[in-house]
Amino acid sequence: MQKIHTVLSMERQAWKWRRAGVRVALVPTMGYLHQGHLSLVQKARSSVGPKGRVVVSIYVNPTQFAPGEDLSKYPRDLKRDLALCRAAGVDAVFAPRDGQMYEGGESLETGGQAFSTHVVEHCLSQSMEGKSRPTHFRGVTTVVAKLFHLVQPEVSVFGAKDFQQAAVIRRMVRDLNFPLQVLVAPTFREKDGLAMSSRNKFLSDSERAQAVVLFQALQWASACVRQSPRRASFLKNRVQKILAQAPLARLDYVAFFDPLTLVPKPKVAPGDQMALAVFFGRTRLIDNRRL
Amino acid sequence: MQKIHTVLSMERQAWKWRRAGVRVALVPTMGYLHQGHLSLVQKARSSVGPKGRVVVSIYVNPTQFAPGEDLSKYPRDLKRDLALCRAAGVDAVFAPRDGQMYEGGESLETGGQAFSTHVVEHCLSQSMEGKSRPTHFRGVTTVVAKLFHLVQPEVSVFGAKDFQQAAVIRRMVRDLNFPLQVLVAPTFREKDGLAMSSRNKFLSDSERAQAVVLFQALQWASACVRQSPRRASFLKNRVQKILAQAPLARLDYVAFFDPLTLVPKPKVAPGDQMALAVFFGRTRLIDNRRL
Repeated sequence: MQKIHTVLSMERQAWKWRRAGVRVALVPTMGYLHQGHLSLVQKARSSVGPKGRVVVSIYVNPTQFAPGEDLSKYPRDLKRDLALCRAAGVDAVFAPRDGQMYEGGESLETGGQAFSTHVVEHCLSQSMEGKSRPTHFRGVTTVVAKLFHLVQPEVSVFGAKDFQQAAVIRRMVRDLNFPLQVLVAPTFREKDGLAMSSRNKFLSDSERAQAVVLFQALQWASACVRQSPRRASFLKNRVQKILAQAPLARLDYVAFFDPLTLVPKPKVAPGDQMALAVFFGRTRLIDNRRL
Repeated sequence: MQKIHTVLSMERQAWKWRRAGVRVALVPTMGYLHQGHLSLVQKARSSVGPKGRVVVSIYVNPTQFAPGEDLSKYPRDLKRDLALCRAAGVDAVFAPRDGQMYEGGESLETGGQAFSTHVVEHCLSQSMEGKSRPTHFRGVTTVVAKLFHLVQPEVSVFGAKDFQQAAVIRRMVRDLNFPLQVLVAPTFREKDGLAMSSRNKFLSDSERAQAVVLFQALQWASACVRQSPRRASFLKNRVQKILAQAPLARLDYVAFFDPLTLVPKPKVAPGDQMALAVFFGRTRLIDNRRL
């Protein structure tokens, strides 16, 4: 397995693959890998086949964190990640060192040599995560565009847990005509239903026990809507009551929307999407499902 | 010579070239080609060699025109352009039909299916053209990113007449790690020094005669600064006087700046860049030179 730590060596490797006609699949991650990530690797492998190359990028992208968010304490363990990737049959890990991805820094000094170009999606990225984290998606689309250019994959795989992120990336790929296909792999869950996330490690034992409440709220709403369509206001009210049974949980948002356009649904029916974000202390968890 | 009119067929052709390991150079234009454009084609050809493919895109991109600008009357003559490209040895012209480049339209309706992703450079694009035409560069960077993805060139050639545009594109390519090289070809001039431009055709005979004043101002400033460094305010004052000798000319801006960072220079010395924009009636001409 190749370990690539600079932008220049990643570019060179991508050109070698391109010139040799090798199919490449990219799985962009922020590291601290879990089974959910490894399922993306599987999907990437089936997509490009045994002769293709599966690349995992590991980069805790500073520009998608707002000041005060958990950038500095976001969990990191590159050694463990590399072992997991090797065991999963990954061909190359691109883990750029600090200072590689944003030349001249992220400073906005006018007229300087600093980094000054962003990719901005201004429709699907406004609600939910975009409302709670206003600069988040600009950071995501920008770094993903950079990774797409550096690795030049034919396929890139994202996780369904970050439902809105996948929708924003798909839109970016469509609008800017990126020459690649976006695949989305299903959310991987713990036995009790909690969606796997690198941030779960921050939960105390009691928070961890109560964190299943996100999954329970999704399951309840799904069953409810399958009986008959319901008003979103009714569902939100009931979800708040379900969450109230987990005293350590604090609801950030719950939303019901069209899975393609992300337009909110006042009346919710089967086929609509539900998403929610819940704080446990300073740890913020998200989850979603098709109802 | 291939004529390609849809996004889908351009994508397919680009993949064929990519899989065959063919080197591709792109010359993005808005059509109504003149010798300046053809010199870009020459540069593209020398860059990829006789076995490579030179692609000229012809697209009057609506998103880089503001309401009230000359989008609807921008000169178009595809038949003539195709003949010029064929004679110049171009391999393929990509001239997307209306409705091909912005799926779902450019409407900003929230949550819809409309086009909603832009590439934004927010440093080099603030001054000069960006100040006179606030949404211009967002349109340019977005459409050029789209063309880069559709054609997948190794090299793209731009004209030095649009100096700030070339600087913004270079910055975008650096910041977003596009896998290609940007080349800039020198400005092509008429015998009296007027920079070639598709917009020159709008000039009346008397305007055309007076339009040489842009070149004269550049030449004067270059000679002046080569004698000794001068304050920008002095130079601007004298340029206004030169322009006053052309009664049909109305100065939009004149600027003296660092050619790399575009930061204005209070004291101007050889090696600095000068640019100006001048109206003749409703026709707006630009020009620039290294002093």
